[in-house]
Amino acid sequence: MAGGYSEARQNKPALVSLHTSAGTGNAMGTIVTAFLTKIPLVIVAGQQTREMLIGEPMLANREAATLPRPYIKCPPMGPVYISVPLDDWDVPYTRPVIPRSVSTRFGPDPERLKQFAERIHKAQRPALVLGAEVDKALAWDTAVAVAELLACPVFQAPMCERAVFPETHEQHHGPLPTARGPLAQYLDGFDLVIVIGAEVFRYYPWVAGPVLVDGTELLHITNDPNDAAKALICDSLLSDAGLALNGLHSLLKSLGTSKQLTKHYSHHENVLSKSKQNTSSGSLMTPLEAFSAVAEIRPSDTLLVHETPSSTADLVQAWPSTEPETCFTFASGGLGWNMPAAVGVAVAQKTISSGRLTVLVVGDGSFQYSLQCLYTAVQNQLRLIVLVPVNEEYAVLKEFAVLEETPRVPHLDIPGLDISASARSWGCSTFKALNRDELQRHFRTALTTQGPVVIEFPVDRTLRPLVAQTLSRG
Amino acid sequence: MAGGYSEARQNKPALVSLHTSAGTGNAMGTIVTAFLTKIPLVIVAGQQTREMLIGEPMLANREAATLPRPYIKCPPMGPVYISVPLDDWDVPYTRPVIPRSVSTRFGPDPERLKQFAERIHKAQRPALVLGAEVDKALAWDTAVAVAELLACPVFQAPMCERAVFPETHEQHHGPLPTARGPLAQYLDGFDLVIVIGAEVFRYYPWVAGPVLVDGTELLHITNDPNDAAKALICDSLLSDAGLALNGLHSLLKSLGTSKQLTKHYSHHENVLSKSKQNTSSGSLMTPLEAFSAVAEIRPSDTLLVHETPSSTADLVQAWPSTEPETCFTFASGGLGWNMPAAVGVAVAQKTISSGRLTVLVVGDGSFQYSLQCLYTAVQNQLRLIVLVPVNEEYAVLKEFAVLEETPRVPHLDIPGLDISASARSWGCSTFKALNRDELQRHFRTALTTQGPVVIEFPVDRTLRPLVAQTLSRG
Amino acid sequence: MAGGYSEARQNKPALVSLHTSAGTGNAMGTIVTAFLTKIPLVIVAGQQTREMLIGEPMLANREAATLPRPYIKCPPMGPVYISVPLDDWDVPYTRPVIPRSVSTRFGPDPERLKQFAERIHKAQRPALVLGAEVDKALAWDTAVAVAELLACPVFQAPMCERAVFPETHEQHHGPLPTARGPLAQYLDGFDLVIVIGAEVFRYYPWVAGPVLVDGTELLHITNDPNDAAKALICDSLLSDAGLALNGLHSLLKSLGTSKQLTKHYSHHENVLSKSKQNTSSGSLMTPLEAFSAVAEIRPSDTLLVHETPSSTADLVQAWPSTEPETCFTFASGGLGWNMPAAVGVAVAQKTISSGRLTVLVVGDGSFQYSLQCLYTAVQNQLRLIVLVPVNEEYAVLKEFAVLEETPRVPHLDIPGLDISASARSWGCSTFKALNRDELQRHFRTALTTQGPVVIEFPVDRTLRPLVAQTLSRG
Amino acid sequence: MAGGYSEARQNKPALVSLHTSAGTGNAMGTIVTAFLTKIPLVIVAGQQTREMLIGEPMLANREAATLPRPYIKCPPMGPVYISVPLDDWDVPYTRPVIPRSVSTRFGPDPERLKQFAERIHKAQRPALVLGAEVDKALAWDTAVAVAELLACPVFQAPMCERAVFPETHEQHHGPLPTARGPLAQYLDGFDLVIVIGAEVFRYYPWVAGPVLVDGTELLHITNDPNDAAKALICDSLLSDAGLALNGLHSLLKSLGTSKQLTKHYSHHENVLSKSKQNTSSGSLMTPLEAFSAVAEIRPSDTLLVHETPSSTADLVQAWPSTEPETCFTFASGGLGWNMPAAVGVAVAQKTISSGRLTVLVVGDGSFQYSLQCLYTAVQNQLRLIVLVPVNEEYAVLKEFAVLEETPRVPHLDIPGLDISASARSWGCSTFKALNRDELQRHFRTALTTQGPVVIEFPVDRTLRPLVAQTLSRG
Repeated sequence: MAGGYSEARQNKPALVSLHTSAGTGNAMGTIVTAFLTKIPLVIVAGQQTREMLIGEPMLANREAATLPRPYIKCPPMGPVYISVPLDDWDVPYTRPVIPRSVSTRFGPDPERLKQFAERIHKAQRPALVLGAEVDKALAWDTAVAVAELLACPVFQAPMCERAVFPETHEQHHGPLPTARGPLAQYLDGFDLVIVIGAEVFRYYPWVAGPVLVDGTELLHITNDPNDAAKALICDSLLSDAGLALNGLHSLLKSLGTSKQLTKHYSHHENVLSKSKQNTSSGSLMTPLEAFSAVAEIRPSDTLLVHETPSSTADLVQAWPSTEPETCFTFASGGLGWNMPAAVGVAVAQKTISSGRLTVLVVGDGSFQYSLQCLYTAVQNQLRLIVLVPVNEEYAVLKEFAVLEETPRVPHLDIPGLDISASARSWGCSTFKALNRDELQRHFRTALTTQGPVVIEFPVDRTLRPLVAQTLSRG
Repeated sequence: MAGGYSEARQNKPALVSLHTSAGTGNAMGTIVTAFLTKIPLVIVAGQQTREMLIGEPMLANREAATLPRPYIKCPPMGPVYISVPLDDWDVPYTRPVIPRSVSTRFGPDPERLKQFAERIHKAQRPALVLGAEVDKALAWDTAVAVAELLACPVFQAPMCERAVFPETHEQHHGPLPTARGPLAQYLDGFDLVIVIGAEVFRYYPWVAGPVLVDGTELLHITNDPNDAAKALICDSLLSDAGLALNGLHSLLKSLGTSKQLTKHYSHHENVLSKSKQNTSSGSLMTPLEAFSAVAEIRPSDTLLVHETPSSTADLVQAWPSTEPETCFTFASGGLGWNMPAAVGVAVAQKTISSGRLTVLVVGDGSFQYSLQCLYTAVQNQLRLIVLVPVNEEYAVLKEFAVLEETPRVPHLDIPGLDISASARSWGCSTFKALNRDELQRHFRTALTTQGPVVIEFPVDRTLRPLVAQTLSRG
Repeated sequence: MAGGYSEARQNKPALVSLHTSAGTGNAMGTIVTAFLTKIPLVIVAGQQTREMLIGEPMLANREAATLPRPYIKCPPMGPVYISVPLDDWDVPYTRPVIPRSVSTRFGPDPERLKQFAERIHKAQRPALVLGAEVDKALAWDTAVAVAELLACPVFQAPMCERAVFPETHEQHHGPLPTARGPLAQYLDGFDLVIVIGAEVFRYYPWVAGPVLVDGTELLHITNDPNDAAKALICDSLLSDAGLALNGLHSLLKSLGTSKQLTKHYSHHENVLSKSKQNTSSGSLMTPLEAFSAVAEIRPSDTLLVHETPSSTADLVQAWPSTEPETCFTFASGGLGWNMPAAVGVAVAQKTISSGRLTVLVVGDGSFQYSLQCLYTAVQNQLRLIVLVPVNEEYAVLKEFAVLEETPRVPHLDIPGLDISASARSWGCSTFKALNRDELQRHFRTALTTQGPVVIEFPVDRTLRPLVAQTLSRG
Repeated sequence: MAGGYSEARQNKPALVSLHTSAGTGNAMGTIVTAFLTKIPLVIVAGQQTREMLIGEPMLANREAATLPRPYIKCPPMGPVYISVPLDDWDVPYTRPVIPRSVSTRFGPDPERLKQFAERIHKAQRPALVLGAEVDKALAWDTAVAVAELLACPVFQAPMCERAVFPETHEQHHGPLPTARGPLAQYLDGFDLVIVIGAEVFRYYPWVAGPVLVDGTELLHITNDPNDAAKALICDSLLSDAGLALNGLHSLLKSLGTSKQLTKHYSHHENVLSKSKQNTSSGSLMTPLEAFSAVAEIRPSDTLLVHETPSSTADLVQAWPSTEPETCFTFASGGLGWNMPAAVGVAVAQKTISSGRLTVLVVGDGSFQYSLQCLYTAVQNQLRLIVLVPVNEEYAVLKEFAVLEETPRVPHLDIPGLDISASARSWGCSTFKALNRDELQRHFRTALTTQGPVVIEFPVDRTLRPLVAQTLSRG
C-alpha cells in the first residue's frame, strides 16, 4: 500500500512501520518489489530494547540490517530500513532539527551527450526505447518532441512498470519482447537503438540468442549506476531521463536533425492491428473484449493498476494510456504487490482529494496473494474498482510450460475460488458479469457506489505465446 | 505447511520449492519462524539461467544466498536454502549417488554432567524448567522419572512451542512468566533451577529486573550452541535433552537422590486453581469456557496447533496435553505461521493414514494472515477443524499497551471480519456457535464431516495482564 | 601498489590478482582504503574448481563475495571483486567481445544549481571548501576561477587525500580541523560555506560540538550519492565537481557576482605564518625544517605520496602543491597503504616513461606495515626516494592520548628499528641524515642514483595538538 | 601471535585488540586462518563514538559486523568479533558480574556409536585417519589404544595442522595425499576407513577422481557440525574426538575386537623408508638433511611451528613428533600466519615460565609476510629459534605449475632477499649455515643465546611432486 501511495504522489517517500523479524519477514516480498521498482520507502522496524538484545529475545531482529540487505537502497531511490530498539523512542533529542534537502536527479555529462547526439544524428534507421524513468521524470512531452524530430518508432521497454509515451501516438509501437533472442530479432533492421530510462534489457524467460543482431548499435541513458554497469551491450550515460531528453532535443535541433517517418520498420506495423482481431470463439468474453468494454466508459482521468500476467498485452492494447502517471504495475514480477498497491493509490487520491477513480485489474490467481487489503479499502471507503478476469488457472505458467516444452505440469488449475465471497467477507460490494453488457452495467453502477467494488467476470482460456513473436517481413 | 508437516513427522526434513526473489521474499516470514522453531526445511528456490544472471534479469535472485541468511541453518537443525539456476536442472549427474547419514544428536560431556548431577543432588529446593527440545527428543518418560526423583515442581519454559511434560501430572506447574523481572521473582525461593532443552530465557516484553534473584543458581542443558552461548546467567552443557536426562537419572540414582515433595513452592500452588474460576460475566463465553467445552469431547489422540495470542494461557489450561508430540505452535511469535502449519500437520496425518484429527485454534486476527491455505485443506479434503474465537480486536496488543502505559493506541479494533464467508470462499464448511452447547454440537458434527471445517464463536473481551503475575506468598 | 598506479593514471582501472580467502584476507586492509579513496580496482581472486566447492576445500573462498562486501563498489567508483573458480578459465568464450563504455561522470540538476548560485550570489561572507573530487575531475583551473569571483578563502576539506587548489595562491587557507566542534568554530563568521567534492565532513577524533554554529549555512556538491545522503547538515547536489564548478562559474558571472577580498576572515590569516616559526629547540631537525630542506630542491614535477600522521601538517606547509595530480595519500587512515602506493605511482611513471620522480614521506612507524614492497621497487629499478623522519614513537597516538586525557598509554615507543638495515635487506640504497645539509646532500645524490633510495633522518619529538586550534581573533 | 598463544595454552581464548576498519582489514588474513584453525580469539575492534557513527566518519567500521562475517564463530570454537563504540567504554556497568561457564565439548550419540563400533568390529581391513581434533582433545593415548586394538595403519589427515599420533609408532603411516583422486587411490584396499577429528577431506589442489574407490566405506567422527554436513561420502557422528575414542575403545573391547597387524597395506609400507633416501646431489643440503641435523640435537620438549610449504613432507619425516601438543601449523594455507604464531607460542612459554624452546621453520618466501613480528620477539627477549631454508623461489607454486601443466609461470623466483639483514634490522641475532656442521653448531649456540635467533641456510632446489604419489603395490 505504501508503495502505491508513494507512486501516486510522484515518488515522495512513504513511511512504513513493521514489526521486528516477523514483520520484516512477512514484508520481504514487497520490499523486493519496492527495491526493483525504486520506490523510496522509509521502513521503521521494531526491535527489542537494547538491554534485552544481548540475549536474543523473542521477536528480536537477528542481525537487524542483514535480512533486507540485498533489496535496500539502490541508487538513485529505493527503500531504506531502520531497526529501532524499543527504548530508543524514549531518548530525548536535544539538538535543533534542521531539515535538509538532497537533489534526487542529476544531468548528463555534456561532452558525452554531445557524442550521443552526433551518433543519433548520423543514424539511418534509429529506434527509441523508453522506460519507466521517463514517466517518473515527468518527461512525456520532451520524449514526444525528440521522437518527432527523429520520426522513428517508439517502443516501450520490456516488462515496463509504467506507461511512458502517449499510446495513441502514431509513432508508438508497443512493448518489446521479453526474452533475449526474440528481442534482438525484433530490433533487427534498426542501425541505432536509443534506450532511455530503462534497463538493457529486463528479460523474463530465457530464450537464447544474441543481445543485438549485427548491424544494430545501442545507446543507453539511465539514472541508475547499477543498470549502467550491468547492461550487456551498449555505451551508457548516466542522467535523469528528462534532463537527457531535453539536452538531446537542443543538440539535435542545432545539428539540424529532421527525419522523415519512413517504412523501414514495416515488419512491426501490423502488430497492433492484427492482434486486435482477437475475439472469443465461444460464449465467454476474451480478456481483450472485457478490458475494451470497460476502457470505453472509464472516466478519462482514471488511474490504472494492473497484475494480470497472462493478459497484460490485451490490457495494454485495450486501455491505451494517454496521460503521464496514470498506469502502474511492478518491476519485479513478484505477484501480490499490485492489489495493495492499488489500495495505496486510492488512499493517495483520498488524501489529496483528487476525486479520481482507481481501477485495479487483477487475475483470479493474483487476487489470492494479498486479498486481505480489501479490508483496508472497505474501512476507508476508498474509490476503487477491482476488475477480476477469472480463468481458473495459472495461465502464465501454462504459457511458460509451453515455452519450456514441459507438458503436464501439475497443479496449474485453480478451480473453486469464490472471488466475490472472499471480497464480501471483508465488507466489499461485488458483482459478477457474464458478458460485455453486464460488465459495462456493473462498472457504471460501481462508479456511483460508496467504497470499493469488486467485479469478477469469467474469460476465455485460450493461451497465448509467453514471448511475443516477430511478424514476418512484408 | 511444510513446517507443520515436518513437525508432525518427528522433524524429518521437508522439501519446499520457492519462486526466486519474489517467492523467497514472500516466504521470509515463515523462514524466520522455521529457523527459530528449528525445523529442517530444504528450500529450493528458482533462479534464472547462468547465462542470464550476469545481466540481473527480472525474477533473478539478487545475491542468492544473502536474503535468507540470518535465518538459515542454525545448529543443530533449521532451514537450508539452495538457489538453483534454471539450466542446472539439465546437467546430468554421472556419479553414483551414495546416501549418507549424519547423526542429529549428541550426548553430554560426562565429566560435566557428573558435576551437574552433584550440584543437583546437593540442592535444597530445586526446580525443573523444560523446553521444546524435551518433546522433540521423545523424552517425556525420562523427564518424568527425573522429576519424580527430585520431587520438585516442573515448569514449562516461557513461550514454549511444544508441550513438554504430562500437564495433568501433580508436579506440573505450567509455564513461566515471559518477562525478565517477573520470571526472576517467580523463581525466587528455589536454590537451583535446572533448565533443559530451552533458552535461558525466551522473553517477550521488556520488564526490568535481574535475570535471577540472589540465592538462585541455574544449570542449563541444550543442544543448541547458540543458545548456550547467549544465555545470560548459568553454567551450560551441550547435549541432546533425552541423553542428558537419561544420564542425569542414572547419576542421581547412584548418588542416592530421593527427595520428598514439599511445600516450599507453596506460593505457586494455587495458580491453576485460581485462574480456573475465570468465567464470563456476560452472555458470551470466555475463551476458557469455550476451549474447555471442546477439550472435553475431543478424541484423545487429537493433534493441537494454536495461535491465539491473547488467550493462550486459557487454552493451555483448558486443554492439558497428556501425550508427547501432540501440541504445536511457533517459537517466533511471527503471526500467520500456525494456520498453514496446521494444514501441514493434517497433510502429514493423511500421508501416513494415521486417522488422527488436527485441531487448529486461531484468533480472528491471526486467522487473517494466511487464510488462503484453507484452499489447500479443501482441495485435499483434510481432517482439520479450525476453531476461531472472535473478539474483533487485536487483544494482545491492547494488553501490551496496558503494560507499556500507552493508552489510546489506534487501529486495534478489527470489526466486520466475516470469518465464515472467507472460509466458504475457498469451499470450506463453516459453523458459528454462540454458546457452549452450540459449540459442542458443531464440533461433533465437524468430527463426521468430510474435509476441513471452520467453527467461529464470539468470546468475551476482558483483557488479561500480558505478563503473568506472581501470586503473593501465603 | 595497484591503487597508487591507478591514482597516477587518472584513476584508470587497475587489475589486481589475489589468492583466494587467504589472499583476500591479507588484502582487506588495502581494499578498505581503495574503497574509501574510491579507486577503481578490478580484483580477481582465485577460487577452487566448481566441482570441489561443494566440499569447502582448503583455500576456497567461503561465501566468495561476502568477505569484501562492505568495501566493494561504492558509487561512483571503487574496487570490484570477482571470485573465479579455477576451471572457469578453461571455458571458451564464443561470442564476439564488444567493448562498451560507461560515462563515469554526471552533471548537476540545472534548476538546483541555479538555486545554489543564487544563494552564493547573495552570501555576505562565503567560504569555499574543496575536496579530492576537484583534483580527480582535473578542475583546479575552474576552482580558481570560481574562488576569484567570490574573493573568499579556500579551505582544503579535512583529512583530504589530494591537493585541491594551488597552495601558494593567496586565497588558499589550508586544511580545516579534523573534529566536529573545532571545525564548526573555525567556520564561525562565514554565512555560507560551499563544500565541493568532499564529505560533510570527514572527522577523525571526536570532539563534541555542533556541526555548524548558528548563522552558518552550508551547500554541498558531490558525485557520491552516499556522501550526499550521510551529510549531517546541508543542502546537497549531485554532480561531478568540474561540471558543477563550470556551471557555477557561468551562473555567477551572469548574476554579476564580483566580490572584494575582505578581511572578514582575519582570524584565519596568520595560521600559516605563525606555524612557520616552528623551529627546533635542540640539535635535531623539526619535521618542518627537514621537509622544507627537501622541498626547496625537489624537481618541480615531483609526485608526492605521504603517510606521516604526526607531521602531515608540517609537510603540507613545507611542500605546497602547485600542480594538480601531484600529491597523494589515503582517505582511510589505514596505515600501510602509502608505501606500496608510492611504488605503484613510480611503476606508473616507468610505464608511461614520464621521467618524473616519486617521493614518499613515511614515518618510521608507518614504514613498518608494508615495507616488503621495497623489494618490488628494487627489482624494477624504480625512480623513488623514500624519506623517513624517525621519532621512535607512535606520535599520533600520543597526541590522541593527550586529547582523550588518558596518560601513560603503554607501548607507544618503538625504539631500535633500523630502517636502513631493513631497506638494504631488499637491496635498496640507503642514507642517514642528521641535519639539513646532510639531508639535502643525500637527496641530491639520490636524484642521480639508479633504483630506489631510502633516506632516514631523526627528528625532534615535540608533540602537537591532534586537532588544530582556532587562533584567537585579532 | 594471539592465535599461537591460544594454541599453546590448550586453546584458551585470547584477547585481540584491533583498530577499526583499517585494523580489521589488516587482520582479516589472520582472522581467516584463526577461523579455519578453530582458535577462540575474542577480537575487540575500536569504533567511533555512537554520536559520530551516523555520519560515517573516518576510521569508522562500516557495517561493523559484516566484514569479518564469513570467518567468525564457527562451531564449536573460533574467533568472535566485537565492534565497540568509543564512548561505550565510559558507560558504567552496575550489575554484579557472574562468571559463567559453557561446556566446550560434547559426547557421541551412544546408539550411533554402537553402530559404528559394530561396523568397525566387522571390518576386514580397516584404516584409521586422525585429525587435529585428536590433539586438541588431548587424546593421543586413547587413539593409540584404539589403533592397537585394530592393529591397523594410522594416517594423518591431509593438510593437518597438528601432529595427532606418536610418529615413531610402528602403525603410524604419515599423512594422506592432498587431492581427491590420489587420496582415493591411496585408500584403495581398505574396506573401512574411520576418520576421527578431521574433515572428509581437506583437499588442496584439484586432481580428478572419486572420493573413495568402490569397496571402501567411511565412518566420520567430528565435533564440527559444519564438517559433518559438508563431508562428501560417509556416515557422520558428532562428538568430541576424545570422548568418541574412549567410547569406541570400550565398545570394541566388549565386542572382543582384537586384530592382528597384517600386511594388507603393504603398498604403503615403504613410503617412509624410500623417501628417506632423499639426499642432495650437489653441495647444498637438502631440506631433509638440514631438518634432520637440527632434529637430532633439539631438546626433547621443543615446540615446533612450521610454514615451509615446499618441504613440509621433509620436515615431518625428519622431525617426528612424539608428544602431544608440540607441533603446530595453520589449517588455512594462508601464508604469513606461522611466524607471528611462533612468537605467540614463545610468549605463552614465557608467560607460564615453562622454559621450553620454540622452533619456527619458515621458508624464505613465507618469512616475508609478517617479518615485523620479530621486533616483538626481540623486545620481549623470547626463547625462539627461527630456521629459514633458503631456496630463492616460490617452490610450491612451481610444483603447482608442474601439476597444472602450465610451464613458464613468471615471477616465481625471489632472489636477493637478505634474511639476516632483515632480522637484524629489528635487533635479532642471526646466523648463516652452509652445511650440516655449521647448522648444528649455530643451533647449539642459539640454544644459549638470550632472545630470538634466526638461522638461515641455503638448500637444494629440487622440486617434488605437489601431490604425493601412491607407490606401486609389491
